[in-house]
Amino acid sequence: MTEADLPRTDFHPYRWGDPAHRTTLPAAATETLAAFGVRTPEQPPAELDSIELAASTVDLAALAEVVGIEHVSAEHDARLARTRGWSTPDLLRLRAGDATDAPDAVVLPGSHQEVVDLLARCEQLNYAVVPFAGGTSVVGGLAPERAGFAGVVALDLARLDAVLAVDEVSRTATLQAGLRGVEAERLLREKGLTLGHFPQSYEGASIGGYAAARSAGQSSAGYGRFDDMVMGLELATPRGTLSTGTAPKSAAGPDLRQLVLGSEGTLGVITSVTVRVRPLPAERVFEGWRFPDFATGAAALRELAQDGPLPTVLRLSDEAETSVNLADPAAMFGGGPGGCMAVTGYEGTAAEVATRRAGVTEVLTAAGGQALGTEPGEAWRTGRFRAPYLRDPLLDAGVLIETLETVTFWSNLDALRAAVTEALSSTLTAQGTPPLVLCHISHVYETGASLYFTVACAQTADPVGQWRQAKQAANAAIRAAGAAITHHHGVGTDHRATYAEEVGPLAIEALRAVKAVLDPAGILNPGVLLPRAEG
Amino acid sequence: MTEADLPRTDFHPYRWGDPAHRTTLPAAATETLAAFGVRTPEQPPAELDSIELAASTVDLAALAEVVGIEHVSAEHDARLARTRGWSTPDLLRLRAGDATDAPDAVVLPGSHQEVVDLLARCEQLNYAVVPFAGGTSVVGGLAPERAGFAGVVALDLARLDAVLAVDEVSRTATLQAGLRGVEAERLLREKGLTLGHFPQSYEGASIGGYAAARSAGQSSAGYGRFDDMVMGLELATPRGTLSTGTAPKSAAGPDLRQLVLGSEGTLGVITSVTVRVRPLPAERVFEGWRFPDFATGAAALRELAQDGPLPTVLRLSDEAETSVNLADPAAMFGGGPGGCMAVTGYEGTAAEVATRRAGVTEVLTAAGGQALGTEPGEAWRTGRFRAPYLRDPLLDAGVLIETLETVTFWSNLDALRAAVTEALSSTLTAQGTPPLVLCHISHVYETGASLYFTVACAQTADPVGQWRQAKQAANAAIRAAGAAITHHHGVGTDHRATYAEEVGPLAIEALRAVKAVLDPAGILNPGVLLPRAEG
Repeated sequence: MTEADLPRTDFHPYRWGDPAHRTTLPAAATETLAAFGVRTPEQPPAELDSIELAASTVDLAALAEVVGIEHVSAEHDARLARTRGWSTPDLLRLRAGDATDAPDAVVLPGSHQEVVDLLARCEQLNYAVVPFAGGTSVVGGLAPERAGFAGVVALDLARLDAVLAVDEVSRTATLQAGLRGVEAERLLREKGLTLGHFPQSYEGASIGGYAAARSAGQSSAGYGRFDDMVMGLELATPRGTLSTGTAPKSAAGPDLRQLVLGSEGTLGVITSVTVRVRPLPAERVFEGWRFPDFATGAAALRELAQDGPLPTVLRLSDEAETSVNLADPAAMFGGGPGGCMAVTGYEGTAAEVATRRAGVTEVLTAAGGQALGTEPGEAWRTGRFRAPYLRDPLLDAGVLIETLETVTFWSNLDALRAAVTEALSSTLTAQGTPPLVLCHISHVYETGASLYFTVACAQTADPVGQWRQAKQAANAAIRAAGAAITHHHGVGTDHRATYAEEVGPLAIEALRAVKAVLDPAGILNPGVLLPRAEG
Repeated sequence: MTEADLPRTDFHPYRWGDPAHRTTLPAAATETLAAFGVRTPEQPPAELDSIELAASTVDLAALAEVVGIEHVSAEHDARLARTRGWSTPDLLRLRAGDATDAPDAVVLPGSHQEVVDLLARCEQLNYAVVPFAGGTSVVGGLAPERAGFAGVVALDLARLDAVLAVDEVSRTATLQAGLRGVEAERLLREKGLTLGHFPQSYEGASIGGYAAARSAGQSSAGYGRFDDMVMGLELATPRGTLSTGTAPKSAAGPDLRQLVLGSEGTLGVITSVTVRVRPLPAERVFEGWRFPDFATGAAALRELAQDGPLPTVLRLSDEAETSVNLADPAAMFGGGPGGCMAVTGYEGTAAEVATRRAGVTEVLTAAGGQALGTEPGEAWRTGRFRAPYLRDPLLDAGVLIETLETVTFWSNLDALRAAVTEALSSTLTAQGTPPLVLCHISHVYETGASLYFTVACAQTADPVGQWRQAKQAANAAIRAAGAAITHHHGVGTDHRATYAEEVGPLAIEALRAVKAVLDPAGILNPGVLLPRAEG
């Protein structure tokens, strides 16, 4: 076996996304950052080859008995590529040469049954198992606690990348969990279909991750969240297979799909998902809008969410985010159009797009919005996956930049936004690094909406500790406001304590009981989502 | 304490719905029945006073310590009124004087905390507890297994009948579980709001029952299922309170609301539900349509469900149901318009109703439908809660009549309908009582639809056993077809075995583990939904 035989992630262990899309900061931004007191860190990021890994403690031959020797590896690069996810603390730790969360081995099963068999084998060997597909977690979902285990195995689903079935009458498709979102769209497009799911992590994330962490895409107003699309799931567990979903909806007991969705690899490994699909839209229109202020814009979005019509994409940036215009790096810090920018997108048949667009235009205009035409909308659409690529050069330049998100009911939205902004600002200012805090609404419901924050400030000498304080303050503010600790990033390890407070001890005990049935030895993502029973 | 102090159900223990709406069979129907070999049973239904109950084994004083002496009763009528639900076998057993499932006592808590305290007390006393609100279960959800318990207590939520909160900005309302659907609508209407939830059991069912059994209303195309409306739940358990739902949707772990919804009183007692509400519609239009056959009509409904626009109500009767016209007792057995009748209903602002109606009309016409105008639509709307009232006089006359329902994906709908029809027909014909089997689609989704069957035939000497055979055959056919055992009636005891096959042993074990956390002594609805661990 050589590492070359091993299908592996194309991504750099501590840089975002597709290497072909990497970017640099415009000169103007660099000058602005200097004026803000940002200084390039003394220590450049570690070279990958120089990052040391602990000696692997895993018996490769035992795992190879299940999947074949060509599908296991304990090589340095294979392990490093599955170390943690894409959160800023994850990147900062690897940049600093800290790969303590690296798995001891990587194993790539080729079928659902091989996953079942692997889990049984890992249980026998007392190995913790980290289900790995896109590897894009931004909440520490790939860094389980290893205490008490003889080793940690990254169970990479990359070989489970097929479309297993398409039912064109029912408009469903059964997709394997390792299929990347981009590839799923490409394969569905061949049949004239789309999932319509485009999260920020689209270039890296996978079907299994969408399901395990309850992803929400940028077109959620039109296509719904991923958990809304799921009609069925196959879950491989150390105890065997759990199949859920016999109908679109039923009254046959609790909805077990909704127990597996969001379980983040702690109850089993999702190996395939049956999802609702839709015909490829014949037409797409994206448009920009300006509102005088966030409150006016938010009220307009609420009106659309409650009384319709709903566009396919609906977003509103606050004043600060509008002025920075993250979607257009070239214009970054160059000043925006003033007020608050919104984006509306429409997908469907030409007639349907025209009808909805006319209806939305009427509502938004009456609500105080000014139509800016398709140019800013198209700029957002074409640039929408680019913003995260700015993080790497910003980190290189000495900026601490990270995002977080939450969701609440409409009547609580203003208070939540103010509380989280204040928590982030005061904590970082107290550390001598006053931040820029940007916010947008990206997902709307009849009863509420999500808030997505981007925070940027100068790095201190300990940026991981610096962010930990800010994040803890934000989490506390979210909890105090009665909102959910996450709208679409998931819980992982970063939100675990706040999540436990949010749902309460009885719920944690109930979920642990489910885990004890499906994963009696507790080998699956220990310490992710749920505090370990001992802890 | 006297029984008069006890708020109690207004309903007759073995007759459907509001006594004011009772009906008789038209003379023509009686003649037709005679021609079909239907004979009036020799034994008239038992007088209520003559139905004997076992001596109560419950310590009323101990329960009165929690709720007050005026809110407990072991009187004959109070117990009989909470004996089983509204399925045909439930009614047949009571008519035959069999009240073996009667609770030993009825207790009416006045607050969430009293429910928590009652459950703790019942656990100490080893009493099984049946949460009771509307009492409209048609799947044996109110007849738990009493083996091993010192008594059975009906925990009647009638006193928890308030609207606790209305958030007009977020469009949510917090409703107590004992609030009847009719009363909830009346209270919301005072604020210009509606739940839009109108199941067949509307005149009897309660908010708690809607949630516990995943009700679906006749306006589900427009307002969604009840489980879709639920934003939060309060669950009283023997271990304390479980509160779920901090936001419309989140990525914070499994959706615990969806674990409580459909749990049918086995995990705890739902004491209040926060639901999404909507403005009262300014306009309502109901219309009739005729399709040449069921397949053409079903294809038209699928087109609306997948590509829109969707009416608020959308139903399609098959040829047999169309010819019988259950919605209009006066015309019963009088011959229908031929083909298959569909009903479309629209609710909303005048402009929205006009737009959707025009869109639907275009689609249905192109799909082979013939518009029949508003008269048959309005006839359906005004008569829609009347059909079940026919059951009592039909049972009196010697007809066995019952309904059942299921749901599947569109591509499986024809096969499912044929298989269930065949199972019912062959089993009942083999017993010498060839049935009439009617079917309609009443709930549509992008990926599938529900099927609702009404079965009628002459009673044999043992109608309970007669129906048991037919129902078992239908359940087996549903399971063999891969469909869900219930779309909106729930599991109860009648579907328990088939449900266990549908979800598989790991799922049952996981749900039992959750129950063991929340209800360690297993006092809540033992044997409902889940087979008991011993069994």
